[in-house]
Amino acid sequence: MSKPASSPASEAPAEARGPAARLPRGFADRGPADIAATERMLAAIREVYELYGFEAVETPFVEYTDALGKFLPDQDRPNEGVFSFQDDDDQWLSLRYDLTAPLARYVAENFDRLPKPYRSYRCGWVFRNEKPGPGRFRQFMQFDADTVGAPSVAADAEICMMAADTLEKVGVARGDYAVKVNNRKVLDGVMEVIGLAGDEHAARRLIVLRAVDKLDKVGPEGVRDLLGAGRMDPSGDFTKGAGLGPDQIERVLAFTAAGAGDVARTFDNLRAVVAGSAQGLAGVDELAEIAALVAAAGYDDGRVVIDPSVVRGLEYYTGPVYEAELTFEVKDEDGRPVRFGSVAGGGRYDGLVSRFRGEPVPATGFSIGVSRLLAALKVLGKVGAEKTVGPVVVLVMDRDRAADYQRLVATLRSAGIRAEMYLGGAGMKPQMKYADRRGSVCVVIQGSDEKVRGEVQIKDLILGAALSSAPDREAYLKAQAEAQFAVPESDLVAAVRKVLARHG
Amino acid sequence: MSKPASSPASEAPAEARGPAARLPRGFADRGPADIAATERMLAAIREVYELYGFEAVETPFVEYTDALGKFLPDQDRPNEGVFSFQDDDDQWLSLRYDLTAPLARYVAENFDRLPKPYRSYRCGWVFRNEKPGPGRFRQFMQFDADTVGAPSVAADAEICMMAADTLEKVGVARGDYAVKVNNRKVLDGVMEVIGLAGDEHAARRLIVLRAVDKLDKVGPEGVRDLLGAGRMDPSGDFTKGAGLGPDQIERVLAFTAAGAGDVARTFDNLRAVVAGSAQGLAGVDELAEIAALVAAAGYDDGRVVIDPSVVRGLEYYTGPVYEAELTFEVKDEDGRPVRFGSVAGGGRYDGLVSRFRGEPVPATGFSIGVSRLLAALKVLGKVGAEKTVGPVVVLVMDRDRAADYQRLVATLRSAGIRAEMYLGGAGMKPQMKYADRRGSVCVVIQGSDEKVRGEVQIKDLILGAALSSAPDREAYLKAQAEAQFAVPESDLVAAVRKVLARHG
Repeated sequence: MSKPASSPASEAPAEARGPAARLPRGFADRGPADIAATERMLAAIREVYELYGFEAVETPFVEYTDALGKFLPDQDRPNEGVFSFQDDDDQWLSLRYDLTAPLARYVAENFDRLPKPYRSYRCGWVFRNEKPGPGRFRQFMQFDADTVGAPSVAADAEICMMAADTLEKVGVARGDYAVKVNNRKVLDGVMEVIGLAGDEHAARRLIVLRAVDKLDKVGPEGVRDLLGAGRMDPSGDFTKGAGLGPDQIERVLAFTAAGAGDVARTFDNLRAVVAGSAQGLAGVDELAEIAALVAAAGYDDGRVVIDPSVVRGLEYYTGPVYEAELTFEVKDEDGRPVRFGSVAGGGRYDGLVSRFRGEPVPATGFSIGVSRLLAALKVLGKVGAEKTVGPVVVLVMDRDRAADYQRLVATLRSAGIRAEMYLGGAGMKPQMKYADRRGSVCVVIQGSDEKVRGEVQIKDLILGAALSSAPDREAYLKAQAEAQFAVPESDLVAAVRKVLARHG
Repeated sequence: MSKPASSPASEAPAEARGPAARLPRGFADRGPADIAATERMLAAIREVYELYGFEAVETPFVEYTDALGKFLPDQDRPNEGVFSFQDDDDQWLSLRYDLTAPLARYVAENFDRLPKPYRSYRCGWVFRNEKPGPGRFRQFMQFDADTVGAPSVAADAEICMMAADTLEKVGVARGDYAVKVNNRKVLDGVMEVIGLAGDEHAARRLIVLRAVDKLDKVGPEGVRDLLGAGRMDPSGDFTKGAGLGPDQIERVLAFTAAGAGDVARTFDNLRAVVAGSAQGLAGVDELAEIAALVAAAGYDDGRVVIDPSVVRGLEYYTGPVYEAELTFEVKDEDGRPVRFGSVAGGGRYDGLVSRFRGEPVPATGFSIGVSRLLAALKVLGKVGAEKTVGPVVVLVMDRDRAADYQRLVATLRSAGIRAEMYLGGAGMKPQMKYADRRGSVCVVIQGSDEKVRGEVQIKDLILGAALSSAPDREAYLKAQAEAQFAVPESDLVAAVRKVLARHG
């Protein structure tokens, strides 16, 4: 902040040092291919959300720190993870860390004028002040949909089905994903029956939930250790366990094993596990209601499944929780096949809007990790294969005739052809190289000879590059004639169109 | 930052107070109509930029504070205006205040792998830590295009023509705008010939530039006062002047009056004003070159004009400066007709990239104020008239039959019809009101009677609302029959499509 304002133009040549040109750690620049692929994916998501009756809304990147609250996943560090700063009135502001907390503020502030239930979607960047790592950025994009003011779990069921439709719309095949549903009340019921209800056990509950969440990674025996004294992983690191007794452990393991191929049996298993907890039984009923709605709409074919192993870290969930998982395999760092994993998730958060209003406001919603979903589509070969076509470049053969070249470019653009005049200071060869780097299909050349004859030369760069592979001299000459040819200036547009059409 | 993390669900009902749901001062939420209008406008701009051969690039919202530098327009407060904060490594970061400084960092950091000249465009939100006011936000959107590595003013001429094409593409008619071009070197030449060259006169130069910039508002006599001792405005406020002598003042006024209907005369006038300054004469030559290129492409019909009164505040400009001005009239706060004014501007900033690299890197670019342009299109009636069509709402007549309603909704969605089941807890009348608020064209009703008969009722809300204006009983009954009718469930999609088609 200390650098005084002064004219950098006069300053830079004098002082060779100067600030380093560095992208901040944990942030990324994006090039045209990435931007275009993301835009296409977002448009597909938007189309599905609109079909489901959701409407767009956007909040700013900045909120008052107290309005944003502290609902970051990692409860160990409640005061970290957020970028905060003061404005010129000394008010504390924060960059949003997700799209849910700002939505809660928006709905609370505009409660009376919004239709209820209020269905909305929003896409945007969020920020975390955390240590960045591979695939872990401090600025990343989420795409959320939420229904506020709908007490019925039909709202949750609908979002799960919408998640399935969305994945298929962006290119994930049926069978390559599953939207898994659980209910926080069932988890709470399990805690209750093993004697971990109440605020005084909050920390231990978290350890139990984390153990359950690791089922995929460490298996039932690993979870058993994590629920008991603790677990030593293959590298020798020891994780202290929840310290549960044998009966408690069996009950939790019975819960994680409750999922059965047939939903009726899953619900029987769950009811047995939470027997004695009204909360837990209510949760199972809600799950059964969701299962019925999903079946009625035909999504019970593996697209939306009840799965008691889904935990979801966020403390604010109060009912159904759901997660969209990609089930196809990719290789991990060590070359072993693993499932791609979660790309979206959400759940019911009846408390988030209420905290502003002092009255219950039911709400449910979910969030797609945009970069992660895009990474999955790249693995599936659904994005990244598009070739970007560069502009037609009009070469500058004679620096004094820029106005002529400008006119040629204007003619091409008027015809809707992406075109530009070479604007650098270099000669013929670097100009050709420039056109190559831009991915241009052809260049337009008008030297003084062509000018005199009222002609332009069109050079097809793709055919030109393939000339050397001509099988014989005759084929070479034929290809050469096609790759570079002269036409009257009045035929410029038609000739360029012909060359562009050659290469699709 | 002090609020401890805890479950808001259990907390909110207990404490009726809680944080206030307030949008931070100077920030705005955006609803569906605004988002859609902006997206359409941005897509149109993008199309023109692509046609001109520019390619997309995006940088993050955050940069290292030292890399961003301090190039805000208001030189009186060089250390303010930016939101800055420290990350968890105590590095100073800032929210970008424009899209040019981050581009300079990006180009410097990726210099060797980028094609040169490098033509790019980017659209995004920028942030200013300033006092907000009417139409003055702390978060606003810019849409920039820049050419880096092109020393020739052909690059500037091209951007001016692109600005003209862009305005027409988004809906501003030819004749309702002008892209005005000046050259900072000419201004510097004027300063030189009146003896204000050199760093020691920087502050006074700024006062002179500001006086010239006020020509539109205060007229030549007002500028004369501001160049001299000072000026008393009608409200009695006194602005201290630059304190120039009579000869100096005449020279500056001759400069502001140099613009003539015919460009050749404008250039003659300018050459006379800067006679004696090599810098100034070079600037006039550059302007003449731009004028020739613009004429060659046919844009000298009022779309792009040479105008010596254009100043542009930013200190970093080093050559041509340009401004896109909307020339149609709107009413000011006092009901007087004024021109809408500037919606975009830019210029050559050869120093911004150089400051990282310690070698000259020519660059030129311009920036559209997205909100301001959108406001202009609203004034012109080009946006805001679109009606948004809400989803088809399937009413919930019998809470136990949610699965049936869910199936009806799924059928409509499969046919590509935007539809939803009512998810609130309210009765028939509020459900109808909800559909009205969403702008739904029709609702689908299936009570127990219809269920028994395997039918659904379709209710056309638009025809229904018009029933009361039927001229007689016969017309009323006919309209009523069209506004609400029963069909077999299997005809649901066809019947809804018929009603949607009625209302376009």
